[in-house]
Amino acid sequence: MSSAIFIQSSFPSKPLNKSPNTHFVPSSKLPVSLSFKPRTAFRKRFSVRAGLIEPDGGKLVDLHVAEPERELKKREAASLPRVKLTRIDLQWVHVLSEGWASPLTGFMREPEFLQTLHFNSLRLDDGSFVNMSVPIVLAIDDSQKERIGESNKVTLVDSDDNPVAILTDIEIYKHPKEERIARTWGTTAPGLPYVEETITNAGNWLIGGDLEVIEPIKYHDGLDRFRLSPVELRQEFDRRNADAVFAFQLRNPVHNGHALLMTDTRRRLLEMGYKNPILLLHPLGGYTKADDVLLSWRMKQHEKVLEDGVLDPETTVVSIFPSPMHYAGPTEVQWHAKARINAGANFYIVGRDPAGMGHPIEKRDLYDADHGKKVLSMAPGLERLNILPFRVAAYDQTQGKMAFFDPSRAQDFLFISGTKMRTLAKNKENPPNGFMCPGGWKVLVEYYDSLTPSDNGRIHEAVPA
Amino acid sequence: MSSAIFIQSSFPSKPLNKSPNTHFVPSSKLPVSLSFKPRTAFRKRFSVRAGLIEPDGGKLVDLHVAEPERELKKREAASLPRVKLTRIDLQWVHVLSEGWASPLTGFMREPEFLQTLHFNSLRLDDGSFVNMSVPIVLAIDDSQKERIGESNKVTLVDSDDNPVAILTDIEIYKHPKEERIARTWGTTAPGLPYVEETITNAGNWLIGGDLEVIEPIKYHDGLDRFRLSPVELRQEFDRRNADAVFAFQLRNPVHNGHALLMTDTRRRLLEMGYKNPILLLHPLGGYTKADDVLLSWRMKQHEKVLEDGVLDPETTVVSIFPSPMHYAGPTEVQWHAKARINAGANFYIVGRDPAGMGHPIEKRDLYDADHGKKVLSMAPGLERLNILPFRVAAYDQTQGKMAFFDPSRAQDFLFISGTKMRTLAKNKENPPNGFMCPGGWKVLVEYYDSLTPSDNGRIHEAVPA
Repeated sequence: MSSAIFIQSSFPSKPLNKSPNTHFVPSSKLPVSLSFKPRTAFRKRFSVRAGLIEPDGGKLVDLHVAEPERELKKREAASLPRVKLTRIDLQWVHVLSEGWASPLTGFMREPEFLQTLHFNSLRLDDGSFVNMSVPIVLAIDDSQKERIGESNKVTLVDSDDNPVAILTDIEIYKHPKEERIARTWGTTAPGLPYVEETITNAGNWLIGGDLEVIEPIKYHDGLDRFRLSPVELRQEFDRRNADAVFAFQLRNPVHNGHALLMTDTRRRLLEMGYKNPILLLHPLGGYTKADDVLLSWRMKQHEKVLEDGVLDPETTVVSIFPSPMHYAGPTEVQWHAKARINAGANFYIVGRDPAGMGHPIEKRDLYDADHGKKVLSMAPGLERLNILPFRVAAYDQTQGKMAFFDPSRAQDFLFISGTKMRTLAKNKENPPNGFMCPGGWKVLVEYYDSLTPSDNGRIHEAVPA
Repeated sequence: MSSAIFIQSSFPSKPLNKSPNTHFVPSSKLPVSLSFKPRTAFRKRFSVRAGLIEPDGGKLVDLHVAEPERELKKREAASLPRVKLTRIDLQWVHVLSEGWASPLTGFMREPEFLQTLHFNSLRLDDGSFVNMSVPIVLAIDDSQKERIGESNKVTLVDSDDNPVAILTDIEIYKHPKEERIARTWGTTAPGLPYVEETITNAGNWLIGGDLEVIEPIKYHDGLDRFRLSPVELRQEFDRRNADAVFAFQLRNPVHNGHALLMTDTRRRLLEMGYKNPILLLHPLGGYTKADDVLLSWRMKQHEKVLEDGVLDPETTVVSIFPSPMHYAGPTEVQWHAKARINAGANFYIVGRDPAGMGHPIEKRDLYDADHGKKVLSMAPGLERLNILPFRVAAYDQTQGKMAFFDPSRAQDFLFISGTKMRTLAKNKENPPNGFMCPGGWKVLVEYYDSLTPSDNGRIHEAVPA
């Protein structure tokens, strides 16, 4: 496990960027009746405390079969009706098995599915709520349903028919596709990547139940060492004596605007009295849409960013978040935050238009850029998490570096969009000096160079195998 | 006010229908992980207690300007930018003004709108939730927004430009129509009645704020006496020494299946130890789609049902619920239930496919018929309300009356759909004996007879004036 943590290499540690700017927005000035106050991190009083945040439901779920029982379970698995998993289904088995979705113990049954769609949260027996905003469900078609018949259990198998898990106490219920899409994405427009990949052609039934995962899910892509489970991450944070963990979700290369944000967050946490805030730099490793940068290249790029001293390896843990990407904006950002609570993070950095994308058929963003952080700050079940919204960073031409955008001198700033960044890298051009560390940029240029024209645009994510 | 309560007429009281059947479904057998147990009325232990259920937020909102200040407010109203209300906007002003949506104090600002869309609930300052599932919002267009400029208040005027209310501390924010529709209805298919009536052609902005309603909203349609506010209903329940209030939402004529259900509910509540359960028979009085029966005729029909002794006037309060209808199924049924808490009801009867309709473009129901009661039983903020799901009633040909459907002898039952009922009434034919009391049926036949061919299909709801 040790190799999974970049800090344990001997990267040179450079002084942190000490920007005088702050990325913390002022207390929200939304006029609210009923005094519904969005929770923002620096309005509350914090008490600095030892120990990591409790997982949702009080206990991290671990759905793996204990080693001594594996052979028995394999024999049982061979006798049950089978359901074949897609690669994205398998990513969800991985997510569930390690407790990222605690307290969920398997694919959702209908009560959980309905609560997720309508309330973005699940009620526990004690009346409290945990957040759960995206349906984690398994679709089957009519013939699979028929084969299952009256069985109370099924075996989930991978593309080679190897048994992966047993799903027990199953419930089969209708898959209301249109309603699921509308309530999760706030649109039913054709062209949503996750919808086209997993829902449009999926079966008309959903099967829920409790998972017994026979062996830990591995991808054998050279990156498994970076796939730390919530338990392993918590162990690492404890080992480092973290008294605050701030998580940064990303699915793009890290530029110096991101770095500014992360180092500035640490500075603020120290000012607040925390002694050892640790950054969880947590790239998403599951399904992503075709034009996102391939995971293995993103990991190389992140490694360079630490090597070049843009982020301090002493206080940074880089690990892969195994979830597939929905691109469901304000709905999905809750999932991204909730899963990080389970991994031990008590601070979550949220940017402009998190988990958003362009509208698939209209010329506009699908979501309001501010809705993500607003929804996150009000979401049931995330009360314990401190939400850190940030102002957008841009290239400050007067300083020749990335800085927090100052609207009073807007003309000084250059916004370098993802599209612009990709175009520059594809054309082997350089971005303005100070946009990204040279080592990181080199990785990006190599990545686009490695894509044959026919590759460019295809889906490349890791496949559990 | 006394004339508003049918009981105060001297209708003959006939013996109640003592059906041996029960309409209470057994405790739900949904297999649930995490032990998420849908709350069902008869799983819990009830303690019978005096006093009505507390309104949401602890206090019934009353947004009317006190009489002595009215002239002052009218003068102020004359000086402010104006926003013209549609008749449905005005129905919402009515709903808000009387506290049906307590603790809402006006049209939603963005934090409330977002919480409604994503969580179907609003968080209060003390961390608790109240249910709020449909957006209560006011749309304005670009030119109205421009006219309002920097003003912090606007005057809401009716179609004749008479000032109705002042909206204070306003917030203007984007009206994300597609997202609002998708998250509220679970579809964006064209042809949703409320959407076509109020959203499709509405402005691209929403304006929220606190309401100061200058005078109580009246419709002058001969039915205002039936429009009891939550305060007035609570007074009436107190006057009758109700120790349980069970609400029945409807927007259709009452047939003997409904009556069976209501009388059987009362019987069960008595068995549970309540001494004086009162039925709130609560037809929806706001906007309904074109083929629903006009409110004034429904009220005549309900009156006949009490006159004919099908329901006991001694234990029944008939009043009009002023809300417009969304036809948003599981989302809307929560609103229907929540508003009745504010009116003093602690039991809510929920049927098959509540607030549902056919899919506007596909040949199927828009919602799963069971989702409404499932969602209702799990909804945040409705924990205090006892949900009474019921089995469907149908015409039992062996008994010659409406009875609870018994699947073991399905062939004995005749289902008389709304469409079938309307067709019979339009053709002046009679339904099977025992389907509806003769007086009530006569009203229906007269109603359809009164419609000229060009009227039939037009929208007829009451217009506040």
